[in-house]
Amino acid sequence: MIFSIDEYNIRIKKIKQKMVEKSMDILIVTDPSNMNYTTGYDGWSFYVPQGVIIALDYDEPIWFGRKQDSKGAKVTTYLKHENILGYPEDLIQSPPLHPYDYLVDFLKSKNWANKNIGVEMDSYYYTAECHERLKSNCPNASFHNAYLLINWIRLIKSDNEIKYMLDAGILTQNAMQRAYDSIKPGIRQNQVAGNIQQSLLSGNDEIGGEYSGLTLILASGTSASASHLTPTDKKFKQNEGTIIELSGVKNRYHCPLSRTVFIGKPDTKTKETLKITNEGIEKAIEKTKPGNTAHDVAEAFWDVLNKYGLEKDSRCGYPIGIGYPPDWGEHTLSIRKNDMTVLRPNITFHLMAGMWMDTWGLELSESIKVTENGCELFCNFSRSLHLI
Amino acid sequence: MIFSIDEYNIRIKKIKQKMVEKSMDILIVTDPSNMNYTTGYDGWSFYVPQGVIIALDYDEPIWFGRKQDSKGAKVTTYLKHENILGYPEDLIQSPPLHPYDYLVDFLKSKNWANKNIGVEMDSYYYTAECHERLKSNCPNASFHNAYLLINWIRLIKSDNEIKYMLDAGILTQNAMQRAYDSIKPGIRQNQVAGNIQQSLLSGNDEIGGEYSGLTLILASGTSASASHLTPTDKKFKQNEGTIIELSGVKNRYHCPLSRTVFIGKPDTKTKETLKITNEGIEKAIEKTKPGNTAHDVAEAFWDVLNKYGLEKDSRCGYPIGIGYPPDWGEHTLSIRKNDMTVLRPNITFHLMAGMWMDTWGLELSESIKVTENGCELFCNFSRSLHLI
Repeated sequence: MIFSIDEYNIRIKKIKQKMVEKSMDILIVTDPSNMNYTTGYDGWSFYVPQGVIIALDYDEPIWFGRKQDSKGAKVTTYLKHENILGYPEDLIQSPPLHPYDYLVDFLKSKNWANKNIGVEMDSYYYTAECHERLKSNCPNASFHNAYLLINWIRLIKSDNEIKYMLDAGILTQNAMQRAYDSIKPGIRQNQVAGNIQQSLLSGNDEIGGEYSGLTLILASGTSASASHLTPTDKKFKQNEGTIIELSGVKNRYHCPLSRTVFIGKPDTKTKETLKITNEGIEKAIEKTKPGNTAHDVAEAFWDVLNKYGLEKDSRCGYPIGIGYPPDWGEHTLSIRKNDMTVLRPNITFHLMAGMWMDTWGLELSESIKVTENGCELFCNFSRSLHLI
Repeated sequence: MIFSIDEYNIRIKKIKQKMVEKSMDILIVTDPSNMNYTTGYDGWSFYVPQGVIIALDYDEPIWFGRKQDSKGAKVTTYLKHENILGYPEDLIQSPPLHPYDYLVDFLKSKNWANKNIGVEMDSYYYTAECHERLKSNCPNASFHNAYLLINWIRLIKSDNEIKYMLDAGILTQNAMQRAYDSIKPGIRQNQVAGNIQQSLLSGNDEIGGEYSGLTLILASGTSASASHLTPTDKKFKQNEGTIIELSGVKNRYHCPLSRTVFIGKPDTKTKETLKITNEGIEKAIEKTKPGNTAHDVAEAFWDVLNKYGLEKDSRCGYPIGIGYPPDWGEHTLSIRKNDMTVLRPNITFHLMAGMWMDTWGLELSESIKVTENGCELFCNFSRSLHLI
């Protein structure tokens, strides 16, 4: 267990309080990050239906998943074994059978199938099929949308969580340095990607890393005009910019960072845009403190862009912490105008300025922790355009 | 583009034929692997809603996704730019707004909102929310379950697809060898994981690799009793077995392989179980030929297990090819009893024997191609228990 039972108990208590507020008796948690947050469960088994059931009138959460994965739940969670349910293998990928038929039977066995049931309507892995099965087989239940209920609780980190993110940040910086050291004209992108992944996972003498919720983004030239392309067999070329976005991960906690590398003599537009973007980031950091809103931070950033006549459609940040594929974001606040979420100490977010232009692009970002009086960066890594 | 336009056209033709058979006018494709199969689209953007629309009365598929990712669609697909739709940023993670509102508006603009619309009910990333939005905003549409419609078409590979899988297999073997060479008592699991990932991505002089749909599975001792645990800071120890499952990836095509490593002198149960499992795999391979069924292959495997009184609940294989997180399986046939799918040339599958016991485990697998007269293994890598 990576946290004390006390810390988990506090989490469950907060969740149950929210459930009471929202008139839910039962909460079915399907987002893998929320499953981890409530039980410690950690396994790459989210490719089959699984979840955690939290019931107001039942002490512990209940994990359910494929029988062969239930052993992983015994290894990684604090749950009593009686609260770990493995459904039979014949339900796996053999329609019309479905694992949610097992879930329905279990809910009925506990007299929960006619209750107020919260489901994470838009969370990863809660498919349309899962919801239809539940609805049609629990006709007396009342379903409530619990999407983001737990995510909002995750927004404020404990000191333990911050510690893991600091560890992740060390991995992040080492890996970005490894990228800088590896990129050369004539080298293939995936060779550099291999070095980066080795650094992210191997770590240093004390700590090693884990797979990340979002994979390494690395794209050069025209491909850097897009936000989510990944390394290929293409070779690095003179006079091309490369965007890199990566994250170290410790105990599933992320600390992402983006930088831009240029081989050769950078053109004016790249240099100027990076300078402006960096000024925007600096102003946004200045505005990051308790009491200010996500909107305030965004406004500080866009004020700089507007001053120079630079446009950017996409938001410039989102909260970070636990992550599983496909994402390391928490899906609650966004650093964008009109998001009036008030910042509080131990909110952590990725201030992410992706400038994806017509035929080129650059990226610059910081992972940030709101403190009592302002904020701190998780990494200490130059934001200058890195020249090779 | 990694395939000729002709190959994509053949795929679209097959899909449209199936749509006619199933009385669908419109098909909304959300599985990232199916998006790739129909358009070539390749980007880690499936963490936000996106998809491909195939309409019987419209020539090309239509890609829709976040505006900042639409450039990635221009870079990676064969689609005309008019068939690439980017929805505005303010729909991203800001409920009650949702990207599917944009999709609904688009369907209405084409007069498709009152048609027979196929949706992949149980595919990754087609959430309950997506489906509810579509249903409630297109009240005159008739919705059909198109889950696995494209996956079944993907089952038989083209020679081009086989070529990419062979390339992936080379990466797979090199990485497994790297694992064997790296595991030593006192070394942390994630150091070995770093070496494996470096090998998988860097590849050899000719080819490099990509991130895989399912991450590297590596677990030792008791953790090897579970099927999907991932490398941690734990150190390798004397007299412990380690299961390793990994896949090289080329142009999104996978070729997974599992092996078991033991440090020290293996106990009898590990040695014997591996020997039996290997005999089961051999018998299953012998039965893999056109005309035989998935059931026949499974029966050959379990006949061996039964002979020795060994039990295994979980299936022992699934088809492979294109994959995106969270999976590299295709979700159609399963190698298990009573799956009467008939094998045909160029069906490719992962014959996967995971023996997850009470407090220990082993894994042994092969990626296999059905040929005209039998089958071929993609990898050539000893199945013996590897001793360190």
